[in-house]
Amino acid sequence: MPRLSKLFLLLLTPLCFAAQADLIVTGRWVVTVDPTRRVIENGAVAVVGDHIAAVGSAAEIQKQWTAKRRIDAGADGIVAPGLINTHTHAPMSLLRGIADDLKLQDWLEKYIFPAEAKHVNPEFVRWGTRLACLEMMLGGTTTYTDMYYFEELIAETTKQAGMRAVLGQTVIGFPVADAKTPAEELIRTENFFKKFKDDPLITPAVAPHAVYTNSDETLQSCRRLANKYNLPLLIHLSETKKENDDLIAKRGMSPTRLLESLGVLDGRTLGAHGVWLDDADMAILKKHNTGLAHCPSSNMKLASGVAQVTKILGMGIAMGLGPDGPAGSNNDFDMFEEMDLAAKLAKVTSGNPQALPATQALEMATILGARALGMEKEIGSLEVGKKADLIVVRSRTPHAQPLFNPVSQLVYAMKSSDVSDVVINGKTVVRNGKSMTLDSNAILNQAALYGAKIAIR
Amino acid sequence: MPRLSKLFLLLLTPLCFAAQADLIVTGRWVVTVDPTRRVIENGAVAVVGDHIAAVGSAAEIQKQWTAKRRIDAGADGIVAPGLINTHTHAPMSLLRGIADDLKLQDWLEKYIFPAEAKHVNPEFVRWGTRLACLEMMLGGTTTYTDMYYFEELIAETTKQAGMRAVLGQTVIGFPVADAKTPAEELIRTENFFKKFKDDPLITPAVAPHAVYTNSDETLQSCRRLANKYNLPLLIHLSETKKENDDLIAKRGMSPTRLLESLGVLDGRTLGAHGVWLDDADMAILKKHNTGLAHCPSSNMKLASGVAQVTKILGMGIAMGLGPDGPAGSNNDFDMFEEMDLAAKLAKVTSGNPQALPATQALEMATILGARALGMEKEIGSLEVGKKADLIVVRSRTPHAQPLFNPVSQLVYAMKSSDVSDVVINGKTVVRNGKSMTLDSNAILNQAALYGAKIAIR
Repeated sequence: MPRLSKLFLLLLTPLCFAAQADLIVTGRWVVTVDPTRRVIENGAVAVVGDHIAAVGSAAEIQKQWTAKRRIDAGADGIVAPGLINTHTHAPMSLLRGIADDLKLQDWLEKYIFPAEAKHVNPEFVRWGTRLACLEMMLGGTTTYTDMYYFEELIAETTKQAGMRAVLGQTVIGFPVADAKTPAEELIRTENFFKKFKDDPLITPAVAPHAVYTNSDETLQSCRRLANKYNLPLLIHLSETKKENDDLIAKRGMSPTRLLESLGVLDGRTLGAHGVWLDDADMAILKKHNTGLAHCPSSNMKLASGVAQVTKILGMGIAMGLGPDGPAGSNNDFDMFEEMDLAAKLAKVTSGNPQALPATQALEMATILGARALGMEKEIGSLEVGKKADLIVVRSRTPHAQPLFNPVSQLVYAMKSSDVSDVVINGKTVVRNGKSMTLDSNAILNQAALYGAKIAIR
Repeated sequence: MPRLSKLFLLLLTPLCFAAQADLIVTGRWVVTVDPTRRVIENGAVAVVGDHIAAVGSAAEIQKQWTAKRRIDAGADGIVAPGLINTHTHAPMSLLRGIADDLKLQDWLEKYIFPAEAKHVNPEFVRWGTRLACLEMMLGGTTTYTDMYYFEELIAETTKQAGMRAVLGQTVIGFPVADAKTPAEELIRTENFFKKFKDDPLITPAVAPHAVYTNSDETLQSCRRLANKYNLPLLIHLSETKKENDDLIAKRGMSPTRLLESLGVLDGRTLGAHGVWLDDADMAILKKHNTGLAHCPSSNMKLASGVAQVTKILGMGIAMGLGPDGPAGSNNDFDMFEEMDLAAKLAKVTSGNPQALPATQALEMATILGARALGMEKEIGSLEVGKKADLIVVRSRTPHAQPLFNPVSQLVYAMKSSDVSDVVINGKTVVRNGKSMTLDSNAILNQAALYGAKIAIR
């Protein structure tokens, strides 16, 4: 029976040669954000260990791969890269909305600084980070970028949550919760780095708060430390007009020009906000390959101004998105809202409805955020070899039907509440809208207790 | 046992004299938006028939009322007035996101008008209205204001959904889906009014599309018809700069001044958008008690500009909020997003973080919307005697904890997905996030079918 055995072999071949994946995720659409911006209808992603092993049509993937686990969102799911938050202050989740609709100085001096002085300690930081990670992961964020205190505790907690993060230990020119001097902060940062170097999820960073809260020497020490270990340096940059004007009056140069003159831009750097950058600043940032974080919610709510995003992106500067802190400047960690706002704000301020289209808003939340962090080879798109950080967003809801274009729908109609599944580093951390790694009940209880405690001032 | 019987009577008294409510809704906070803007901690609302019979502390209400039905959100719920959408085009839900990031003329002429010419018919209008009502009610909107075609079918469908609406039959100077001439539209409108007069949920309205799409005579006929029956007149007003500039070039006056000169503002009127109103226009609108609808999402996305909301509200003009249509100008019907955006947009454009605080954003979505529609005696706040239109919003979610101020939380942190229960005209239409009046599955199936049909052009 030579013909029959040949047929038998032919039938057996796909099974025999099918490779083993740990996870296959199928979706009605796979939005890759790869270099060709491919959107695959009825697509799938195969995951092996912590990385993406294949991306293609569901039919191809099913033929070539078997899987231990599956997430099947083939009927209505959009599979997309995990969202990347490039600027936030996670533990401030416990101060969410503590003081709104105030002038920046009143807000900081009458509410935020006193509340932080009184309440910020290791326990506060741990619970605040848990609450933030829970909200972020349920809403589709897979990587976040932080600037706060006790960053090594934030790292431990984030790692337990299974989330990826770039965590910047704050260096600031006055005594704060975790240190009395910038020198102490720099020691903390170095110890933090040593503890988490080569960690698969945590990237330690050096975070001088801003030019107006640090001496030139401290800024330079931060750069030296960052370059010693190739860490990113995170800094608030030209967020408010006052910050710019004051420095120009005092030193005769913008924050960006000061940083350049000090050599602080010579290495991996991410500047948050960039609202008041001028053309010369942008050219400098481009030259140094500095990344930026656009924070539309925060810049609107605190009336800081509007960053020239279209121009910045047009120059080839990598600008991601960040929700900033939830204690008055947002008040949440919702990357879907930041995408929607970034697109709408660019349109209304330019008078051009074609400015910052949906595709570009999604890029800011994914691949451009990755580039801004210097991590574009690892995250930010669904491509073979990259880390398996992906989300499934469900479209079978009244606000997401009908669906003509998945990218447009993601940016303009869908919500963080539509995220059903989240995979980070190959591990499923959210399944059917529920956290698999964090105890939601315990976190919500603690958050309410902190609220009651902090409210009594 | 005289003392014992006295005690017995005393215990019995509250039960004997307790009045009978049809529904009692208790919440951790009751945000009334009444004239004193009272927020009641551990509060309750008693409903009898279609109206609110009592508002007070939960303890008081429980003492004075018994109830046939209860919604108990005492642990984490905010009870608030139902949200009022003052400008939308409901059936366009079926064209959600059909064409984004385009210039207005391309969007209208290449996509919207052809799609409407081909697809808009009674079935389209019915399914589009169902989809819109489902999304709106699940997201806490209890009253909406529409401008479209076949408005009597929209009325029937909305009534079946159990939703309150002000429905404006469009009058426009070219042939459309439901009529060939403005005269035909006016006849439709009058028939529509006769069919729905004294309806508890539906308020028919006359809706001349805009000054630039109608003759002076048609605009005046609309006013006459509206005043004959005391109907509201709804009209797009100074949405784009082009609309203003063109009229000034042609007629030497702004749209508002033209409407005043024609007598069109002499009666109940609501103008949508009002982006390009100048001081003289505002004074005219104030004099005529004209209401306005602010549409921040739409004005941003279509790059129409930014209405001077703070100034308008400061003059005492009633300006509500509207998501506009979902076919490119938004792309959803989310009043939580409109509140958040209205507040943030006012701050960033004025450079003042105190502009349009949370309280005022909530007012726009409730009592000011009611006033803009001339319905402030019936809806827009939780007050005795008003219609029982209310929502319960749950705060036990990671993005809404801790909670320091319920109004601030509603506007800046909470989402349409946090709405758990919706009562309209005393009837529970959404319970635990599920529609009680509409068949969600059937609607989502139809929406997907329309999507597939419309996409093939």
